[in-house]
Amino acid sequence: MPRIRELGPYESALPPGPRNAISDVAGVTVGHYTLIEGAGAADPHWQPGNGPFRTGVTIILPHNGNLYDEKVAAAVHTINGFGKPFGFEQVRELGVIETPIALTGTMNVPRVADALLTLAAARNPHIGVGFPESGWMGYASVNPVVGETSDGYLSDLQGRPIGVAAVRAAIDAASAEVVEGAVGAGTGTSCYGWKGGIGTASRVLPPEKGGYTVGALVQTNFGRAEELTVVGVPVGKQLRPPKDDEPPPAILGGSIMMVLATDAPLDARGLGRLCRRAAFGLARTGSTCHGGSGDFVIAFSTAGHICDRPASLTAMRKVIDEQPIMSWLATAVVESVEEAIYNSLLMAVTVVGRNGHTRHALPAAEVARIVRAHRPGA
Amino acid sequence: MPRIRELGPYESALPPGPRNAISDVAGVTVGHYTLIEGAGAADPHWQPGNGPFRTGVTIILPHNGNLYDEKVAAAVHTINGFGKPFGFEQVRELGVIETPIALTGTMNVPRVADALLTLAAARNPHIGVGFPESGWMGYASVNPVVGETSDGYLSDLQGRPIGVAAVRAAIDAASAEVVEGAVGAGTGTSCYGWKGGIGTASRVLPPEKGGYTVGALVQTNFGRAEELTVVGVPVGKQLRPPKDDEPPPAILGGSIMMVLATDAPLDARGLGRLCRRAAFGLARTGSTCHGGSGDFVIAFSTAGHICDRPASLTAMRKVIDEQPIMSWLATAVVESVEEAIYNSLLMAVTVVGRNGHTRHALPAAEVARIVRAHRPGA
Amino acid sequence: MPRIRELGPYESALPPGPRNAISDVAGVTVGHYTLIEGAGAADPHWQPGNGPFRTGVTIILPHNGNLYDEKVAAAVHTINGFGKPFGFEQVRELGVIETPIALTGTMNVPRVADALLTLAAARNPHIGVGFPESGWMGYASVNPVVGETSDGYLSDLQGRPIGVAAVRAAIDAASAEVVEGAVGAGTGTSCYGWKGGIGTASRVLPPEKGGYTVGALVQTNFGRAEELTVVGVPVGKQLRPPKDDEPPPAILGGSIMMVLATDAPLDARGLGRLCRRAAFGLARTGSTCHGGSGDFVIAFSTAGHICDRPASLTAMRKVIDEQPIMSWLATAVVESVEEAIYNSLLMAVTVVGRNGHTRHALPAAEVARIVRAHRPGA
Amino acid sequence: MPRIRELGPYESALPPGPRNAISDVAGVTVGHYTLIEGAGAADPHWQPGNGPFRTGVTIILPHNGNLYDEKVAAAVHTINGFGKPFGFEQVRELGVIETPIALTGTMNVPRVADALLTLAAARNPHIGVGFPESGWMGYASVNPVVGETSDGYLSDLQGRPIGVAAVRAAIDAASAEVVEGAVGAGTGTSCYGWKGGIGTASRVLPPEKGGYTVGALVQTNFGRAEELTVVGVPVGKQLRPPKDDEPPPAILGGSIMMVLATDAPLDARGLGRLCRRAAFGLARTGSTCHGGSGDFVIAFSTAGHICDRPASLTAMRKVIDEQPIMSWLATAVVESVEEAIYNSLLMAVTVVGRNGHTRHALPAAEVARIVRAHRPGA
Repeated sequence: MPRIRELGPYESALPPGPRNAISDVAGVTVGHYTLIEGAGAADPHWQPGNGPFRTGVTIILPHNGNLYDEKVAAAVHTINGFGKPFGFEQVRELGVIETPIALTGTMNVPRVADALLTLAAARNPHIGVGFPESGWMGYASVNPVVGETSDGYLSDLQGRPIGVAAVRAAIDAASAEVVEGAVGAGTGTSCYGWKGGIGTASRVLPPEKGGYTVGALVQTNFGRAEELTVVGVPVGKQLRPPKDDEPPPAILGGSIMMVLATDAPLDARGLGRLCRRAAFGLARTGSTCHGGSGDFVIAFSTAGHICDRPASLTAMRKVIDEQPIMSWLATAVVESVEEAIYNSLLMAVTVVGRNGHTRHALPAAEVARIVRAHRPGA
Repeated sequence: MPRIRELGPYESALPPGPRNAISDVAGVTVGHYTLIEGAGAADPHWQPGNGPFRTGVTIILPHNGNLYDEKVAAAVHTINGFGKPFGFEQVRELGVIETPIALTGTMNVPRVADALLTLAAARNPHIGVGFPESGWMGYASVNPVVGETSDGYLSDLQGRPIGVAAVRAAIDAASAEVVEGAVGAGTGTSCYGWKGGIGTASRVLPPEKGGYTVGALVQTNFGRAEELTVVGVPVGKQLRPPKDDEPPPAILGGSIMMVLATDAPLDARGLGRLCRRAAFGLARTGSTCHGGSGDFVIAFSTAGHICDRPASLTAMRKVIDEQPIMSWLATAVVESVEEAIYNSLLMAVTVVGRNGHTRHALPAAEVARIVRAHRPGA
Repeated sequence: MPRIRELGPYESALPPGPRNAISDVAGVTVGHYTLIEGAGAADPHWQPGNGPFRTGVTIILPHNGNLYDEKVAAAVHTINGFGKPFGFEQVRELGVIETPIALTGTMNVPRVADALLTLAAARNPHIGVGFPESGWMGYASVNPVVGETSDGYLSDLQGRPIGVAAVRAAIDAASAEVVEGAVGAGTGTSCYGWKGGIGTASRVLPPEKGGYTVGALVQTNFGRAEELTVVGVPVGKQLRPPKDDEPPPAILGGSIMMVLATDAPLDARGLGRLCRRAAFGLARTGSTCHGGSGDFVIAFSTAGHICDRPASLTAMRKVIDEQPIMSWLATAVVESVEEAIYNSLLMAVTVVGRNGHTRHALPAAEVARIVRAHRPGA
Repeated sequence: MPRIRELGPYESALPPGPRNAISDVAGVTVGHYTLIEGAGAADPHWQPGNGPFRTGVTIILPHNGNLYDEKVAAAVHTINGFGKPFGFEQVRELGVIETPIALTGTMNVPRVADALLTLAAARNPHIGVGFPESGWMGYASVNPVVGETSDGYLSDLQGRPIGVAAVRAAIDAASAEVVEGAVGAGTGTSCYGWKGGIGTASRVLPPEKGGYTVGALVQTNFGRAEELTVVGVPVGKQLRPPKDDEPPPAILGGSIMMVLATDAPLDARGLGRLCRRAAFGLARTGSTCHGGSGDFVIAFSTAGHICDRPASLTAMRKVIDEQPIMSWLATAVVESVEEAIYNSLLMAVTVVGRNGHTRHALPAAEVARIVRAHRPGA
């Protein structure tokens, strides 16, 4: 299972970080809980609700401290809102994220949000309670942030098996070594007719542009096979999944979650600008943003945490004049998202799920062959 | 427990409907599940998570059919986004609501959303499954809509006791006779330092303006005592809750959910315009929209359901040239929201909750006396 | 022509600044150019395009330096978008204002924006040119910010008489002594059936909340006579303009521009939150936000200018943890806007305009009498 | 000057309409006024304000009737808001366009908006006046819609030479035969380091998907030479403009206006969804959405005009269940925008402008050669 850069030369305007992963942004870690349960066999008597499951949860930790006490500046963006994320309103209002960011399967969102509440309250017992000794503080709520795509082709959606144990396991597994492919929230997803999943990549700006890192992590679950484009090459025109896969649906759906991290000291408005560039990376892989797609972006900055209960009203903070480097940050976002999507496909294994539904691994060698045929002199 | 109109003459530019309730919009019903559990006594050893509970859930049904099959045009609006509603992104994108609308306490939102998923799937077994006989349909997801405010002063937030049984009970209880006060999602809320809760009101446009009805239902949980204003009279300047109530919090919070219904055939854009008028009704009661407030609006139209799987691509639909009546609709929204807030206060009983925290019923006779003193000739 | 506080005791939760004007925010100045030209007589043969004019332009200067070089953090907000302001998209994207803020009559907006371009280029010759010596800079454009309401009942809209000379005159007239009433952009406006115009007010936070000042300036042009509410008293129920005024229009229109200034070091997101509170002040005066109303808010902070061509990519900047004082800032906004609207009415003289259309000055003594009758013990 | 399809086989998922132009949407016409004035020679003593000019205006007419009386459903969308369009707030609120849509150079926007006011008032004399015989109507304003990009590299921006005569000439020239390249609003623009301009393309849905047409017209003025990608081929890696062109600016700018037309009976919300797909077409050509870019989209539907003063409050209107065809519409938008951008480049001639600044025509034969080398078997 090679990453895209292992297939051959990969041109990019900006270089990746050392891991070519969202964790190249210092302090960011990622963990998965993967649930593969029940046989993936055709079953004419199948009843939803009890599996089989090909699902999971992926956690992105902006830092390894207490996120409720030390929030991070953040923004969210909706490209096509056919989806059910949690926590977006408060991120828009306050410009911060205060829990781990979770990705999961669509119908699991409430249970994952509920799990994040449980864990936040366990770590911060005053949540929902306040500090009686200093006067009750009504605001001691917490805003979980959960993204989703639907893994219902392979996994039993109605069962909703991801709860607090799964979320805790994913948090505990968080590491700078990001596992890609059919894991965590990507266990049961589909992308361009193939097995999709989790992918990541990063870019580093030149020192004279601040030397900042931008990383992307994606949960891919969108697109039709014929649309797949790899580094500009219309791979999907030549390479199709085996024909036993499903007929085209009445409404074209599919979704993607894109999580962006940076150490550039951007505020929420600046991070919103990063979010709005993610679609440009997505488009490079062939997406036309189907009508049934939930395409969402979450961005955060690790620079300068925001205290929950600051000692003083004002503080000196490093701020950036974003405009001179916004185009470089834009390139970093676009290239990271594009490459993360390729990695999510190439690193995913074939998965057989409910009713024998099958998503095949994108054959890396075939992709490499087709790309090479289109790259004279490369 | 009188409604505001029972206290004396109540002037309004537009007349209310027969029930002066959101259910004056034909087909709309409201149901509550109210949970009062555990003693409301001071307890120095209190640990959150097991009650006492003063919470619940309120359900608004746009019609009594299958909302998933027969969706209603809808819009949402965020005035101050310090809150955790569910389902807003998809309403913004598609302009429809396809489940019962639920209101609850803030940390219960995920469990209520999860319950709506359970109930939607029970009624529509293809959710998350698709129609295998006609080709798999990936889009067969469902978007629960849940609003919230924090009832954490009176109720144990961490416990999160509202699940599928409670939601089903509230749906089953739905009726055109709307119960107001400390019930359902309003069981544990606070408003202007007093006991808040659920309130409702409605207005009817003149026949030559279409004769449409607009109804509002509110879950009130905001404001400081000194801010309370009733029909323009600064009641809060003279009337305060007993002083054993809590000290002012470090951050002023509180929230309100405002649900608007109409039978005017507005599309999602037009309903968004109704939403943006709700703040004007809220402001009349004294609100300054505190920084810690989650103030949200949900609006729907009962005119012309939107099929989930329409037989044909296009249809003839009655549409409205909204502009000639938008000001009348605006007045209807503003007046309904204002009056619904008064009703939510006046209809609420005193509630003693966790740690002996107490929210007193707003004394109606005192309010009437103060208002009368400011209304010469009335 | 008294301001509202000269009519009698005026209660407010926060005290005003020394001038009770937007210019209490240090450095902010306001200037008007007022055009009263042509007889205000009934004329059955009147042809639009050549007057009479009852119009003008009002300029708000965030500081007295070169705004293009030293921009201010800013936000804009649309309550009801029936209007034609200029420059909002770029303020949303970049979070800054870089020209004087102009208010004028609706059809004059393009000419006023054009005038701001002329003046910006005159002061900053590189606009549209770049700095050839240091490499061409394509971004050397400038974003004028212009708000408007329609003064077409009194003034000939089609004539559009406000150009660069008028704008320059208003800038040159800018002073911390803000003139209110039927001046500048308020020369021809109507409010609650009376003569509207320009009004201003301010509030100061307590020292322990930072001691910040918030100021509001409004251009009032909205509402029906019966809606007028003054400090909660339904003045419009008793006091109406003389009956020779116009019949109710088919579509209820009218508009308001609200400009907010503060010295609190809020960023664009925080200023957006201030903007969204302005509607609460507007609502206190009786507005229901008519369907034909263009209700817009512009907010800026004078704390910490933002350089056009900063020497370094990052800088240390004083930032505020807005949440602990947002409710105080909200109160300051709501009260300032409310009081500024009263001042705009009370300070305006009767104006007779095109076709003999007349807007009468709101009779201050009558207002005071009615308010007193509703304020027992005050 | 070939269009892209004349260079060789051009694959697309959907077929173009007969003209492969926005005018394939029945009734839509486009006109240009092109201003080439003054010598394009290096001039060390050049002073801005008097030319030379390489600018113009492009008009898109949704239909050939009176747009004020017969408005069209419309939406606008901002991808990156570094720009100064006119009229967006009211389109967002009311969902209609009521004037010709104009595109021009950035500093000309106010004068073009002013010209549209002049022309609208000439055709509809009650604008700004109302109908005195039937009661004054305060809402009789008009909302011009103007988009822009900066042509300041080739043209004297400060001069602003486009006024009412130019706008009228462009309207009078409107035709279903759309002229592309360095004309109208594209006379002085730059794209990927080459001469940009106006381009157009269209797509037609299959009959069983309604057979609707989607057309795009773009004004291209963005991107760096190395970014240019043509049908997935990294042309910009091999083909660069002559080196006498300008050094890279400090801030990467450039902009694009994208206008979408369709005969599908979408409402404003549905048209907003089309707008949000335009970025996916833009991205295919290599754009990373630079920080200094004003990237805006305007969409309208020609199906079912919206009367200014309808005879009755409600009407029966054909509406579409957009969801089953949204993905097809998305493909149509993405492909139309992509192809329109190629056409804007290929159809543009070399232009020498102020100070001898030169933008070379993209050499079509070279593009064709490079693309062919990357298309084995094509």
